[in-house]
Amino acid sequence: MMDIKFLLFTLLFGYGVCNAGTFYEREDPKPNIIVFLVDDLGWQDISTFPNFKKLVQTGVQFSDAYATPLCTPTRVSLITGTNAARHRVTNWTHPDKDRSTDYPDTIFQHVDWNINGLGIDQSENNTFLVTPLPRLLKENGYRTILVGKAHFGSKGIAASNPKNIGFDVSIAGSEIGHPASYFGWENFDRPRNGSPNRNAVPGLEKFHGQDIFLTEALTQSALAALGNVEKQTPFFLYLSHYAVHTPIEADPRYVDSFYDTSVDSVEAAYQSLVKGVDKSLGDVLDYLEENNLSENTAIFFLSDNGGLSRVPPRGGVSDTHNTPLRSGKGSVYEGGIRIPFVVKWPKVVRPQSVSKNPVIVEDLFSTIRAIAGVEDREVVQTVDGINLLPYLQDADLVDSTRALVWHHPNRWIKEDFSSSSWASALRIGNWKLIYDYTKQELELYNLDSDIGEKQNVVHKHPEKTKELAGILTQKLKQREAQLPRFKGTEKLIPWPNEIVNDLKK
Amino acid sequence: MMDIKFLLFTLLFGYGVCNAGTFYEREDPKPNIIVFLVDDLGWQDISTFPNFKKLVQTGVQFSDAYATPLCTPTRVSLITGTNAARHRVTNWTHPDKDRSTDYPDTIFQHVDWNINGLGIDQSENNTFLVTPLPRLLKENGYRTILVGKAHFGSKGIAASNPKNIGFDVSIAGSEIGHPASYFGWENFDRPRNGSPNRNAVPGLEKFHGQDIFLTEALTQSALAALGNVEKQTPFFLYLSHYAVHTPIEADPRYVDSFYDTSVDSVEAAYQSLVKGVDKSLGDVLDYLEENNLSENTAIFFLSDNGGLSRVPPRGGVSDTHNTPLRSGKGSVYEGGIRIPFVVKWPKVVRPQSVSKNPVIVEDLFSTIRAIAGVEDREVVQTVDGINLLPYLQDADLVDSTRALVWHHPNRWIKEDFSSSSWASALRIGNWKLIYDYTKQELELYNLDSDIGEKQNVVHKHPEKTKELAGILTQKLKQREAQLPRFKGTEKLIPWPNEIVNDLKK
Repeated sequence: MMDIKFLLFTLLFGYGVCNAGTFYEREDPKPNIIVFLVDDLGWQDISTFPNFKKLVQTGVQFSDAYATPLCTPTRVSLITGTNAARHRVTNWTHPDKDRSTDYPDTIFQHVDWNINGLGIDQSENNTFLVTPLPRLLKENGYRTILVGKAHFGSKGIAASNPKNIGFDVSIAGSEIGHPASYFGWENFDRPRNGSPNRNAVPGLEKFHGQDIFLTEALTQSALAALGNVEKQTPFFLYLSHYAVHTPIEADPRYVDSFYDTSVDSVEAAYQSLVKGVDKSLGDVLDYLEENNLSENTAIFFLSDNGGLSRVPPRGGVSDTHNTPLRSGKGSVYEGGIRIPFVVKWPKVVRPQSVSKNPVIVEDLFSTIRAIAGVEDREVVQTVDGINLLPYLQDADLVDSTRALVWHHPNRWIKEDFSSSSWASALRIGNWKLIYDYTKQELELYNLDSDIGEKQNVVHKHPEKTKELAGILTQKLKQREAQLPRFKGTEKLIPWPNEIVNDLKK
Repeated sequence: MMDIKFLLFTLLFGYGVCNAGTFYEREDPKPNIIVFLVDDLGWQDISTFPNFKKLVQTGVQFSDAYATPLCTPTRVSLITGTNAARHRVTNWTHPDKDRSTDYPDTIFQHVDWNINGLGIDQSENNTFLVTPLPRLLKENGYRTILVGKAHFGSKGIAASNPKNIGFDVSIAGSEIGHPASYFGWENFDRPRNGSPNRNAVPGLEKFHGQDIFLTEALTQSALAALGNVEKQTPFFLYLSHYAVHTPIEADPRYVDSFYDTSVDSVEAAYQSLVKGVDKSLGDVLDYLEENNLSENTAIFFLSDNGGLSRVPPRGGVSDTHNTPLRSGKGSVYEGGIRIPFVVKWPKVVRPQSVSKNPVIVEDLFSTIRAIAGVEDREVVQTVDGINLLPYLQDADLVDSTRALVWHHPNRWIKEDFSSSSWASALRIGNWKLIYDYTKQELELYNLDSDIGEKQNVVHKHPEKTKELAGILTQKLKQREAQLPRFKGTEKLIPWPNEIVNDLKK
């Protein structure tokens, strides 16, 4: 416990980020922290909904915020501060232990990634050994509450149970990655062959048989859990909605209003899921207001990856849902990784501000660690994320030199569209380099003029390509990133800097 | 058993239908009979599918064929030959006994209709007492097989079990009106609050846990049942698909092919259901060919009402799915009652013929009764249907004097669009009269020039309106049809002929 004031400014120095005009002076009481995490919510899918707009009006919105292309990799980065290239949980983890979710491939051997997810015990194979964020917070006096999807690792791995990674309270989260059913009257289950579905949502027995939607059940559970936190005790609420992941089931409270002549039926159901999330956000904001907690609660609203853009199961036309962004969930194109990200914290953040600084999900770890006062606790993992406090305090601050890295040496799905598999990427400033393993080609985009990644300018800018390929290679090697080998020859695929020779055509 | 030949012609005489050029000489062996009944399939929904086209090319297609607006009324008419105005099963029957499915109404009292469905025992209240078609056939040496949806009455009523109405074999049919799930891996069930769904499909245990779709499971069951019929024994197969009723769930075998830029996702799922039905039809046709049964098997392909056109649960825009027909399931407009109807019977029917003669579902009873040689058996119910054999034999034969009657003195659903509730109708020749109880107004359409029922010509043709209103009134009174009473005054609503006074405006 600290009761001396200090300047966070000094902490930021190591990141080379100085902005003399703003700083955050921490003092008791510690801020409450809420991570409001939505599953598979596309970049702009919630932008027109009222409570999200309210959040934006009272916080800072990051226009260039990123996650990984898939859910478990993002969740592991958030909880550890480590980039996916390093933590090697580069695909979603199967509910059952020791089962890779890589789709069979004919060209490449699958890499030996951390298929079991987050590890807290050295004896667990194929896990990424960590000191998890909730444990740091708990040890520093926070009441730590997880409500909703966890999906940190496979069943049987300690970290699959949120209580083992530092959550005091854990409701409805386990090794599963999506709900069997969103409906209380189905007990959030949909049995297969008479047995419970392996994706039945656990721990919501009090809502079984009720006419309630999962998003609402989680919200009520979260607010009830907050109500049980003793006054003076700061809380960390990780409210992690299963929505808007598949199955894209209509929220009966809202779906009727989304039917009109222009909307696909599955899109109407999708929008009803989004509406349910927005309602949940509104309920949380209202709760904070009513309990005089708004001022010193930092809310981080984000999605875990881009919007799903495969049809089926999404409605409409594949690869169009995140327009103007290219592609969707699973891809290193913007549609797969760019996410909505807003931070509200009245005590620190200027309302209605927009930051264009590129940020990535592992930054949440470092940021929360800083604002909770646990930045000096040792962690076993290497942290790649940065503390975003300077950007929260000054939305005009932009670091155009930082390199963001995405690494997905896996085959996610059967379809092989839009770099949804076997790809890495790098962003520095407005330049974005993509390495498509299957073609063993590089693509270069200028996001400033081409957010849709339509104009590959590799041949127009060979020097820039070469420079970025070198940086990407260096970053990947530094992080001991895995690359796949060719089947047959068992030769490693080339590093990005090895395929830039004949760019000048 | 008959081994003397006779002319069916003489039987037809009583209906005033004579066509000297054609007749059907019956001889042993008795024809096999298949009723291939689809649920909620709209008029033209299957018209482009290959096996249906094959059926059309080898049989007679009735362009102006009708059912009732809803499923139980149609099924009761089919099994009894009685018009809905008379049998009084004018809404769908609830799975549970003594539960009316009428939606609460503010204007009218609900009529005391036969909410329990088909009756075979006088002690059963609110049933229509009958001698059912399968029993007639069974008693005349037919092996009678029901596979799929029955929905003849509520649970606890004898007729809810197909074996009690004359089916030797009964698979998957009961009091339920739609499946809880189409999926074998869900055991065709979707439990609610941990208990089996009341609409779980019974009797398909051998497919539980399998990767099989309901339509396929029923088809395989039907063909297996046919394989068990002894040679020389004629069969009556009532193959009654749950498809394409809600829940509109994608058939995974086909749905991918229906996704394109122009199709709503639920429509794609709907089309995959239709495709599954078409595949089933193809399998049945193939089975008959392979077993040399085609020549003397009469197949009656039909739907039980018009296509569902409510959104949700159907995709797209309400009231558009049966274009050019107006409205859909539940309505007495053409979209609710006009159905696909094809009869294939190589021994009798000329291939690739089209009949424009208006026919209605109770005609199947009389037709099957005739071709199976049971037309002289007494039945307790009054039969309104006619024997269609002359029309099967001569597609050019049209009776423009016959009156077809629809009667729906019920409120089906909450929404009150397109006469989906509280309506009666009459068709004679190309004239169609509709009586909308809620407005207490008549509508007149000329189907020859206005199949979409867009131009109400009541005021242009007051005399025709008056004439038809008189006939409709007479038919309804003859059949002891029920009309609702106003709430409050308890006064009966007017008969159609009582509201034609001020038509000349």
